[in-house]
Amino acid sequence: MDYSFLNIIDILGTIAFAVSGAFSAMERKLDPFGVVILAFVTAIGGGTLRDVLIGNTPVAWLRNEMTATVILATAFITLFFGRYVKQFQKTLFLFDALGLGVFTLIGMEKGLRMQLSPGICIALGTITACFGGVIRDVLLNNVPLIFQREIYASACILGGSLYLLLQKTGLSNDWNTIIAILTIVLIRIIAMRYKLMLPRVYENRM
Amino acid sequence: MDYSFLNIIDILGTIAFAVSGAFSAMERKLDPFGVVILAFVTAIGGGTLRDVLIGNTPVAWLRNEMTATVILATAFITLFFGRYVKQFQKTLFLFDALGLGVFTLIGMEKGLRMQLSPGICIALGTITACFGGVIRDVLLNNVPLIFQREIYASACILGGSLYLLLQKTGLSNDWNTIIAILTIVLIRIIAMRYKLMLPRVYENRM
Amino acid sequence: MDYSFLNIIDILGTIAFAVSGAFSAMERKLDPFGVVILAFVTAIGGGTLRDVLIGNTPVAWLRNEMTATVILATAFITLFFGRYVKQFQKTLFLFDALGLGVFTLIGMEKGLRMQLSPGICIALGTITACFGGVIRDVLLNNVPLIFQREIYASACILGGSLYLLLQKTGLSNDWNTIIAILTIVLIRIIAMRYKLMLPRVYENRM
Repeated sequence: MDYSFLNIIDILGTIAFAVSGAFSAMERKLDPFGVVILAFVTAIGGGTLRDVLIGNTPVAWLRNEMTATVILATAFITLFFGRYVKQFQKTLFLFDALGLGVFTLIGMEKGLRMQLSPGICIALGTITACFGGVIRDVLLNNVPLIFQREIYASACILGGSLYLLLQKTGLSNDWNTIIAILTIVLIRIIAMRYKLMLPRVYENRM
Repeated sequence: MDYSFLNIIDILGTIAFAVSGAFSAMERKLDPFGVVILAFVTAIGGGTLRDVLIGNTPVAWLRNEMTATVILATAFITLFFGRYVKQFQKTLFLFDALGLGVFTLIGMEKGLRMQLSPGICIALGTITACFGGVIRDVLLNNVPLIFQREIYASACILGGSLYLLLQKTGLSNDWNTIIAILTIVLIRIIAMRYKLMLPRVYENRM
Repeated sequence: MDYSFLNIIDILGTIAFAVSGAFSAMERKLDPFGVVILAFVTAIGGGTLRDVLIGNTPVAWLRNEMTATVILATAFITLFFGRYVKQFQKTLFLFDALGLGVFTLIGMEKGLRMQLSPGICIALGTITACFGGVIRDVLLNNVPLIFQREIYASACILGGSLYLLLQKTGLSNDWNTIIAILTIVLIRIIAMRYKLMLPRVYENRM
C-alpha cells in the first residue's frame, strides 16, 4: 500500500484538529498566541501523550517540522479568515472523522509494534485520537467534551477492535487498516447524522 | 516477605481509587465512557506520572493488562450497581487508605532503586499515591481536593519519612515497609475520625 | 563564560516562579501543602514538560536536590512572610523576567544539542519558560494567563529567534546567550511599563 496515502489523511486530520483547537480558543477570546497553542495542543496532544506513555521520545512532532508548520499555518489562516473557514464546517467534520480514524490506527500500530497486549493497543489508539481534544478542553477550563455522551471515543474503540479481529482473517494489513478507518468514519457520520448518543445507564441508580 | 501480599493490597487500592474516580464522574453526569476514563485516570494517574518523570516507559499499566482489566471491571460495576457500591463506603475508605500507603511505598522504592536522593523519593511516593486524584479533579474542572486542607498527602510524606528513618535501624526492609504503610493508614483513619485538617497558617498574613 | 553566572540567574528565576506559584495558591486559600505544590509546579513545570517531551529522564529536578530545596524554602518563606514578600513586587518582577530569559535559553540549548530543527528549539525554549505557569493556572482552574493577551510567551519567541540569528554571526555563544536573555528581559519590562498587549486580530471577523 502506498503509505503516502495515509500520510495525506494524517495531514488532513491534523488540519481539522488544529482548526477545531483554534476555533475553541477564538470563542474564548484568547490572544493570538493562545490560538496557536490551542491549535497545536489539539492536533498533537493525543500523539504526544501516547509517545510519552510508551517512551517514544523525542515525541513525534519534535522530530518532524512538517507537522508544526502545517499547524502553525492552519492556526494563522483560522485566525485571520475565521468567518470564511467556518463555511467549510461539513468538510472540516469529514476531515475530523478521517483524522479520528487515522490517528486511532497510527496509535494502535505503535502499540502492536511494541508487542503490547490487544486491549492496551486499543487504548493507545483511542488516546492518540481523542486526548488532544481532552487537553484542549482542560486548558480552556471545560469538562472534556468527549466525556459527555457524544459517540466519539466509542467509534475509536469499535474501529480498533474490528482491526484486531480482521487481523485474524486472511486479509492483508492494508485492507484491514482501510476497513477499520472507514468504520470509524462511518460511525462518526451516522452518529452525527442521527444525533446518536451514549446512554446514561446509571441515571436512576444513584 | 511474600510480595503477593503487597500485590493484593495494590489491587485493593487500585479498586478503591477506581471507584472514587467512577463516582466523581457519575456525580458530574458524565457518559459511560467518561466514567471509565475517570476510573482509569484516578487509579493509574499517579503511577503513570511517576513512571513518565523517571523515564520508566512504557509506563506500568501498559505492560500489565491485569491492572486495566481490574479497573475496567470496577468501573462497570460501579456504573451499574452504584447505589449498592455506595453502601460499602467504610470498606472503600479503608481500601483507599491502604492504597495510599502501598502506592507511596511502591513509588519510593522505584526512586530508591534509581539512587535518587531521599527527599526526592518521598516526593515520588507522594506523587504516586496522590496525583491520580489531582488529574481526576483537573479533568472534572475542580481545584484538586488534596490542596484543600485535608490530611492526605501529608500522611504520605510522614509515612515516607518514617520509612527512610527506619532504614537506618537494623529492621528488615519488609518490616519497615509494613510499618510505614500502617502509619499512613492510621494517620488517614485518625484524620478522618477526628476531622483533622491542615491549618491555614497564612490566613491573617496576607 | 563562567556558567555559575547562568546558574545564579537560574536559581533567581526559580525563586521568582516559586513565589508566583505560592501566591496564586494563597489567593485561592489552598492549604500549606497546596501552596508548596503550586510553588513547585510553577517553578519546574516547564522544564519538566520539556524533559518529558525530549525523553531527558529522570527529569532535571529529580536529579538535583538543590532545586527542590530552593523551592521548598521559597514556598515556606512566602507562606509565613507573605505580606513582607509582597513588598518586593518589583524585585520579583525582575527575577521573573530574568527567569523567563534564562529558562528560554536553557530549553533551546537542550533542543539544539539534540539536533532538533530551529523552530522546534524555539518551541522547546518557550515551553520551558512558560508552561510552569500554564500548569499552575490549570491546577487552580483558571484559563492560563499567558493565553490572554499579555506579552509573555511572545518575548521568549522573539528572544529565541534572535539567538538563532546571532549564531550565524561571528559572535561567541556566550555573548549570543547574554544578548538573547537581555532582549527577553527588556521586552518584558517595556511591555509591563507601557502595558503593551497582543492585539485581538480576529475580533471583528467571527
